[in-house]
Amino acid sequence: MDRRTLLKSSGLLLGGLTLGNLATNVAKASADNQTADKATKLLIQPTKEQPLLLNFNENSLGMSAKAQQAVIDALPNAFRYPDAAREQLIEKIAESHKLESNQISLGNGSSESIQAAIQMAIYRAQKAGQQVQVIAPDPTFNYAELYAKASGVPTIKVPLTEKLAFDIDTMKKTAEDFPGYSIVYLCTPNNPTATITPADLIEPWIKAAPERVLFILDEAYAEFVTDPRFRSGIELVAKDHKNVIVTRTFSKIYALAGLRIGYALAHPDIIMQIEPFVSMDNTNTAGAVAALASLEDKTFLTISRTSIETSRKIVTNALDKLGLAYLPSQANFIFHKVSGDVKTYQDRMKEYHVFVGREFLPAKGWNRLTLGTPEEMTAFVSVLTEFRAKGWV
Amino acid sequence: MDRRTLLKSSGLLLGGLTLGNLATNVAKASADNQTADKATKLLIQPTKEQPLLLNFNENSLGMSAKAQQAVIDALPNAFRYPDAAREQLIEKIAESHKLESNQISLGNGSSESIQAAIQMAIYRAQKAGQQVQVIAPDPTFNYAELYAKASGVPTIKVPLTEKLAFDIDTMKKTAEDFPGYSIVYLCTPNNPTATITPADLIEPWIKAAPERVLFILDEAYAEFVTDPRFRSGIELVAKDHKNVIVTRTFSKIYALAGLRIGYALAHPDIIMQIEPFVSMDNTNTAGAVAALASLEDKTFLTISRTSIETSRKIVTNALDKLGLAYLPSQANFIFHKVSGDVKTYQDRMKEYHVFVGREFLPAKGWNRLTLGTPEEMTAFVSVLTEFRAKGWV
Repeated sequence: MDRRTLLKSSGLLLGGLTLGNLATNVAKASADNQTADKATKLLIQPTKEQPLLLNFNENSLGMSAKAQQAVIDALPNAFRYPDAAREQLIEKIAESHKLESNQISLGNGSSESIQAAIQMAIYRAQKAGQQVQVIAPDPTFNYAELYAKASGVPTIKVPLTEKLAFDIDTMKKTAEDFPGYSIVYLCTPNNPTATITPADLIEPWIKAAPERVLFILDEAYAEFVTDPRFRSGIELVAKDHKNVIVTRTFSKIYALAGLRIGYALAHPDIIMQIEPFVSMDNTNTAGAVAALASLEDKTFLTISRTSIETSRKIVTNALDKLGLAYLPSQANFIFHKVSGDVKTYQDRMKEYHVFVGREFLPAKGWNRLTLGTPEEMTAFVSVLTEFRAKGWV
Repeated sequence: MDRRTLLKSSGLLLGGLTLGNLATNVAKASADNQTADKATKLLIQPTKEQPLLLNFNENSLGMSAKAQQAVIDALPNAFRYPDAAREQLIEKIAESHKLESNQISLGNGSSESIQAAIQMAIYRAQKAGQQVQVIAPDPTFNYAELYAKASGVPTIKVPLTEKLAFDIDTMKKTAEDFPGYSIVYLCTPNNPTATITPADLIEPWIKAAPERVLFILDEAYAEFVTDPRFRSGIELVAKDHKNVIVTRTFSKIYALAGLRIGYALAHPDIIMQIEPFVSMDNTNTAGAVAALASLEDKTFLTISRTSIETSRKIVTNALDKLGLAYLPSQANFIFHKVSGDVKTYQDRMKEYHVFVGREFLPAKGWNRLTLGTPEEMTAFVSVLTEFRAKGWV
């Protein structure tokens, strides 16, 4: 079930819970960056009115103060179409990746960039009179699958290996065995596992793949990665490979999920093919100026990264202590085992006003937990420890 | 040429001109609402740095102060996905039209709603193994045509009548003669003519049309209409007609063009078919809360309407005086004749730092002028009068 459907069915958001003030200010988070012990002193007590929302991989540091000010300053002119801020943002993003502006396509979140890429690839295949399929690992972020489904295109889901890694060989064979076009969707770090796939496993495939295989590399969490085995697909775009589209977002490291700014990076010829499938005037002024300010706020970037590292350490320390397995997280969430049924665990956590995410089948027994601020994770660990005392995890 | 392409080719917006402060505060506009004479006292002098932008049908009153405050208040939680505000906005829009929330689909501007409707209709036709075409008046707003073109679907353009009205009979015949599916795009009031098409000409066609004809009624400017011969297509949606999709926007009457909120209204079955083509999480939080606040700010709505009426009167008085023909405007822009070549007129106006819009072929000799605030239109009239003295119009 996707996030939106889940929300609708749970009815959670209708009560305005996400509008409750859960933001922790950046200065406070920064000051707490030292040890879990210190964070304990600021223990948050989750309540029904102020639950702990660790379920949607949002960045609960909140957006940079400079980004907020940029939005406020832009409001008197927000009656204008967003073209000016849009053009500036494209230039700035291109510059930040040492690319040209014709290698960037802005999306209404990377969600729209993925949609446009999928629709473009389907159109291209159908125009050539070819069958088309999507190939994706399982589990992974499911928007590529949903957008393909909207156009009647099936997704072949290739289960992760026993170690919950991408089964590149099987995916490759799935593309090779198919007579038509394949769109390969690879999310790295992967959602929900939070693990990277080493570039040495992906790049040779991309470089050797026939023209009828197109790769979408979803790098929504790339800015959190420290593992040197990860290399961004942007390097391939810079080298003019035409069979790869990389998507990025301002929702995660920059905490702008509500303001909907993402983008695709690809060869200029591919960008020109994607653009007709992106909706016109798709970049809202508030998001554009917030993204511009965020790109210039290097301090916020550092705080955002450090905060997640601290939160991750708080959680892995606890999981180690409790003997619960977890995968090496390279994102702002972590995939860990719980003893017993995950749904029961999730429901019990809800009773404590903690929303811990969920299981992603077929990875049975694992739970995806978003890493909030260090204070939030300390509060989570406190509940988790209590659960152990009760014999629940 | 569409707006975005035009901007890119002119390079106008790269200089940040649209970010220049042209907003006039609401109180001032309200005080000027009496006569053109009074507005003259506050004459604006367009300059290179502060040009008069009367070219994109934006509402230069600027967004309501309450909408601005709503955005500011939402920023601390804009790190969350926008689902909560999104749900609230859907409810509120439905309520404002006396419909149910399952009759509303939010768009990233009505631009995305038009795109999703077009893509849905194309998919439906192709799934049924049928040919598909778009039928649109000429000239009209061209996004339906552009989105259809992206999917390889042609648009049959039916020229306006001699009186620049929709040629409903020819459009109807074009649909009847086509063996496949037709998507009929009707913008009313029409952009660029600013005129309405009486409901008595449209409704009988919609009610009698075969199932293979789908109507998209673009009502971006409906809130400005005073002519009783106009009736919104929403009345047909309320009566459960399944062959009509109405689109609306917050960009015009509510001055939120930069914040990208539009929507489609249709039968629940049609909304369910449109939604898979809308990008996920498509509603930015800033736009959603601004739209919610705008819907509650009845004073702003009144001021926005009155201001346009005053501006229109200022312009039609001048056009009457100069003997230049114009169509009866029912929107925040006006289609009027100029003596001589429109491009030359436009270029000369640019030299005076006034961007007056442009010609829309095949309506040769006519110019589409956006109605800004009364002060802005007074400044425009001053330049226009000077042009007459020079023998230019």
